[in-house]
Amino acid sequence: MSAASRAKRHQPDMDVTVLEQTDDVSYSACGMPYNIAEADREIDELVVRKAQVFRDKQGIDLLTGHRVEAIDAGRKTVAGRTASGEAFRFSYDKLLIATGGSPVLPDIPGIGLPGVTALKSLGDGRRIKKYLAAHPVKRAVIVGMGYVGLEMAEALRSRSIDVDMVKPGPVLLPWMATELSDTVKKELEDNRVGLYAGHAVERIESVDKRLAVHCAGQTLEADLVLIAIGITPNSGIAVAAGLATGPKGAITVDRAMRTSDEHIYAAGDCADAYNVVNNERVWVPLALRANRAGWAVADNVCGKAVELPGIAGTAVFKVFDLQVARTGLTPDEAAASGFDPVGAVIRARSRAHAHPGSCTITTHMLADKQSGRLLGTQMVGKEGVAHRINAVAVALYNRMTVADFAQTDLAYAPPFGPTWDPMLTTANQLLKKL
Amino acid sequence: MSAASRAKRHQPDMDVTVLEQTDDVSYSACGMPYNIAEADREIDELVVRKAQVFRDKQGIDLLTGHRVEAIDAGRKTVAGRTASGEAFRFSYDKLLIATGGSPVLPDIPGIGLPGVTALKSLGDGRRIKKYLAAHPVKRAVIVGMGYVGLEMAEALRSRSIDVDMVKPGPVLLPWMATELSDTVKKELEDNRVGLYAGHAVERIESVDKRLAVHCAGQTLEADLVLIAIGITPNSGIAVAAGLATGPKGAITVDRAMRTSDEHIYAAGDCADAYNVVNNERVWVPLALRANRAGWAVADNVCGKAVELPGIAGTAVFKVFDLQVARTGLTPDEAAASGFDPVGAVIRARSRAHAHPGSCTITTHMLADKQSGRLLGTQMVGKEGVAHRINAVAVALYNRMTVADFAQTDLAYAPPFGPTWDPMLTTANQLLKKL
Repeated sequence: MSAASRAKRHQPDMDVTVLEQTDDVSYSACGMPYNIAEADREIDELVVRKAQVFRDKQGIDLLTGHRVEAIDAGRKTVAGRTASGEAFRFSYDKLLIATGGSPVLPDIPGIGLPGVTALKSLGDGRRIKKYLAAHPVKRAVIVGMGYVGLEMAEALRSRSIDVDMVKPGPVLLPWMATELSDTVKKELEDNRVGLYAGHAVERIESVDKRLAVHCAGQTLEADLVLIAIGITPNSGIAVAAGLATGPKGAITVDRAMRTSDEHIYAAGDCADAYNVVNNERVWVPLALRANRAGWAVADNVCGKAVELPGIAGTAVFKVFDLQVARTGLTPDEAAASGFDPVGAVIRARSRAHAHPGSCTITTHMLADKQSGRLLGTQMVGKEGVAHRINAVAVALYNRMTVADFAQTDLAYAPPFGPTWDPMLTTANQLLKKL
Repeated sequence: MSAASRAKRHQPDMDVTVLEQTDDVSYSACGMPYNIAEADREIDELVVRKAQVFRDKQGIDLLTGHRVEAIDAGRKTVAGRTASGEAFRFSYDKLLIATGGSPVLPDIPGIGLPGVTALKSLGDGRRIKKYLAAHPVKRAVIVGMGYVGLEMAEALRSRSIDVDMVKPGPVLLPWMATELSDTVKKELEDNRVGLYAGHAVERIESVDKRLAVHCAGQTLEADLVLIAIGITPNSGIAVAAGLATGPKGAITVDRAMRTSDEHIYAAGDCADAYNVVNNERVWVPLALRANRAGWAVADNVCGKAVELPGIAGTAVFKVFDLQVARTGLTPDEAAASGFDPVGAVIRARSRAHAHPGSCTITTHMLADKQSGRLLGTQMVGKEGVAHRINAVAVALYNRMTVADFAQTDLAYAPPFGPTWDPMLTTANQLLKKL
């Protein structure tokens, strides 16, 4: 929708048709856990702009309930079926694939039982809210321990639902340094979330109106099971049309968002991006990039050549009272890209010496030992983490060394940090290892 | 003290003598308003490291109560008097002038009355706390509306003291765009701080155990008068020794912190710096730069050549519930440096669409119309401002254009901001004017 809107703003006389399989467009998907946390809020509060507005105010031919099933790149047509089963076919001059991603569902018995669900679309959110309203849910099991799982743990706990989280891997957040992930773990435990890392889920059974989640060495009971083990790009029709795909099966796009077919663009969670640190293709399905890529497609289609530099992989999430943020590469990613990664983990205060209300901010900063380049940073703390990480993200775009970053003039006032910002303290310590 | 400590760490056998006119070293000066806000807290909580620790643990010959009155750069000696009146003289191989700044006191009748004070040294803070403890202070007048004045307004209001602020100039914060300074003004008014901009203070009188502050067209009554019209660099002994001074009379130093005499360094609030945006000398007395400059002096004296890139002029302060931050140049500064400044002021939300608890963040971003370079940013809001500004500060170090900054991958999660960070939204709007 961001591409469609921008294209119509650039060229009001352009015929812009949007084919959407559901009835929902333009909503804040990331807001769903926070909406689900409050029984009284309508899920439709998350709708940013209604379909009718796109049609009436912007002149976009927005067709909901239209599922595209095939692209004929030679004839430049797309074909599919409506929700009521009617076949359709449209021709295009330029096509944008913005099919998003779908939750990964493990192939285990019981995955289709009522009360077992994922959370990706607004429809999923709507279904979960209805289920919670209609059933006395006392206990939930969340399969997976990523962003969405952690946000949903908080949401369900705030509705006084007991929560257990389970995953096959042995570590809560394997991309984080232990000092940081242990802080997250403690926050979850302090909020009475049961953590069962290292238990593969084998099957889900319906037992006496409840659900039994059978894992390797553990059975967890629940009234609701949320599957949150990640998403996968919806690149099926792109693959079938012969378009190139790359990391995780996402559609390969160049910096102008063009696929391997010059008339077809891709943007959003179905498409890949360049990482600005290692210049490699990555698939990181995040909202800002999706919006930005939509704009870039509109610009390019309308003749205003735009190339996006890529992403730093900046992300932040809230786990109860904790802010968890990252940008750039992890040590494993850095090593795989040929860097010689060296890191420093430093605990610092969130406020100045003797200022009341201070908490600990733990920062893990990573550099390349050969070049001294800053490669990435992760931070955890109860305040001052979410926006601090942006300073490192900007540094990554500029390929700064840790030595240069350590000299930047960051804001200081006693309520907001120590004289030496935690990022600077970490950079100074990291410099000693370079 | 940061220079002395670091020099001893580098070279434990070096003779390091520190001559300090007061008895206080190594304290959080910026923390004083927050300490004064709480009657129960001891002012000495702000001491980071006691004099004895520097002597016993670090082997620094720290002489308090030693006021240096003259430098003989030819003979490489400094001379002065102790608090008890004894003359002293020390020779040096390398000298660091770290004399700081002094509050500017207007030359008006009554400036020396009891209850009329400035706030710069720990001694000032101690005196104000004692005065508040000993006198029934119901009302205070603050002369000046800068950082310290605003922080002290909050501190005194939190002790249920009525506060009036007065200054000769007509505008609260003249370096800010009106949309931003109006927000600060409203916050002060909402907290019942009387604002009297445009009234020059002419004299202060003692009347019936109270103080009468006579201004042009206005008389304000008070039990305490705080003078907070700014500070001036303590460069007198440097000037007398023939050292070069520059903006605001601060001691001129190169990027290695060397003055115009190769054996004399200067650091802290008495010395100047380069602004990284316009590469001009500026005098911005702030804590991080002072610390960093102290380290650089130690490094250079100990043979490890270090040059500091300069400052961006990043600063943040709290005004009751409001965070006010800036980095880089103001429009006036930009124009004076030969740029062609163009700005955009944008109001955005501090959290995502439909996320509860959101407030308004107002951002003023400035660019050079010719080159598209980002020149500075100011932000005001009740959350998410203090640390956001650092992203722009890092961009300034890298001389980024607004177009490039607008493409950076900043963190997003609904509790912490909209998908497009307020800084990105402002950059996007500013781009339309370039």
